[in-house]
Amino acid sequence: MGEERNLERLEKQIRFIVEIDKVKNIFRQTYLADTGRRENDAEHSWHIALMAYLLREYAEEAVDVGKVMLMVLIHDLVEIDAGDTYAYDSVGAQTKRGREVAAADRIFGILPEDQGTYFRELWEEFEAYETPDAKYAHLLDNFQPLLLNDAADGLSWQEHQVKKSQIYKRNEKIEETSETVWNCMKEIIQKHIGRGHVVDA
Amino acid sequence: MGEERNLERLEKQIRFIVEIDKVKNIFRQTYLADTGRRENDAEHSWHIALMAYLLREYAEEAVDVGKVMLMVLIHDLVEIDAGDTYAYDSVGAQTKRGREVAAADRIFGILPEDQGTYFRELWEEFEAYETPDAKYAHLLDNFQPLLLNDAADGLSWQEHQVKKSQIYKRNEKIEETSETVWNCMKEIIQKHIGRGHVVDA
Repeated sequence: MGEERNLERLEKQIRFIVEIDKVKNIFRQTYLADTGRRENDAEHSWHIALMAYLLREYAEEAVDVGKVMLMVLIHDLVEIDAGDTYAYDSVGAQTKRGREVAAADRIFGILPEDQGTYFRELWEEFEAYETPDAKYAHLLDNFQPLLLNDAADGLSWQEHQVKKSQIYKRNEKIEETSETVWNCMKEIIQKHIGRGHVVDA
Repeated sequence: MGEERNLERLEKQIRFIVEIDKVKNIFRQTYLADTGRRENDAEHSWHIALMAYLLREYAEEAVDVGKVMLMVLIHDLVEIDAGDTYAYDSVGAQTKRGREVAAADRIFGILPEDQGTYFRELWEEFEAYETPDAKYAHLLDNFQPLLLNDAADGLSWQEHQVKKSQIYKRNEKIEETSETVWNCMKEIIQKHIGRGHVVDA
């Protein structure tokens, strides 16, 4: 009986592992550094999980790096059903929450209850953007595409004619999370305003 | 002076973050579950880092999940220079270690010394395949492509005419790492022998 329950549990975990493979086909607006193609959610999540370790020294408040790594590894899974909503798409943003909650119900619901509940809590914590861990996760989530965009000569900013004010609005909590990173971000944005890749408005 | 040193440190970290973007263009032999294309190292690493949390209950020896997550997030970075060596490529395997050591020197050398040294140690621990953490990381590294191959109807096994004995040889330490996972792997292999996707030899 114990063995049987164990197998049923492993089956659910495997079903989840195979299901989330789909996030490798959810493409973002950000280009890879070499501009060869856009990056997908799995690649983005890998990148920022690794960054979670590297940049922790810049977080103003203490963070639990292992927890943040897991949080960012799963933070985009809801996009399997809900799709990627571009950071500066105000129309899509209006329906985003509803679409993503339904996706979270379905996708995290595949897991054994204890693990599904924990992933759901981690995702809700990320979305609420209030705890030091969630704020640090958002810093990584915003800083990584900015670094890629910088390497790609501002390509996706140019394509979407992004304004400085939009970038500042999206990143309004970064300064309180890390002044060092925010200073670095501002410098990059300013450079691309100078090059005409970001609209100075 | 402190501020200046801090900026120099952040610059090194950013250079590393942008450099490792290249691993998104290192493609493996494994297909995605939907068989649409092969998967790359970043996607694979994302997948197994997440699995590190989900499957820890099956490890016979206690593991440090946060450390294993970081270990698997970086375990394939050397392939940026050394390329991917297919699991069943015996010719490539002969030169693999030399190519990968040179790559580790260069890539981890981009980081500030403390972080570069730690990443190098983690990678060496993974390669040595001796500690419980490294053994668990290898289990994940081998189990994930097997699950994708299963979902993809054995496509990459078929393409390479892989033999059961090769798969067993590659996975010879899995049973001591987790009997439950090894039993599951054997079942999947047997199923694909039955379907003619894996050679029964």
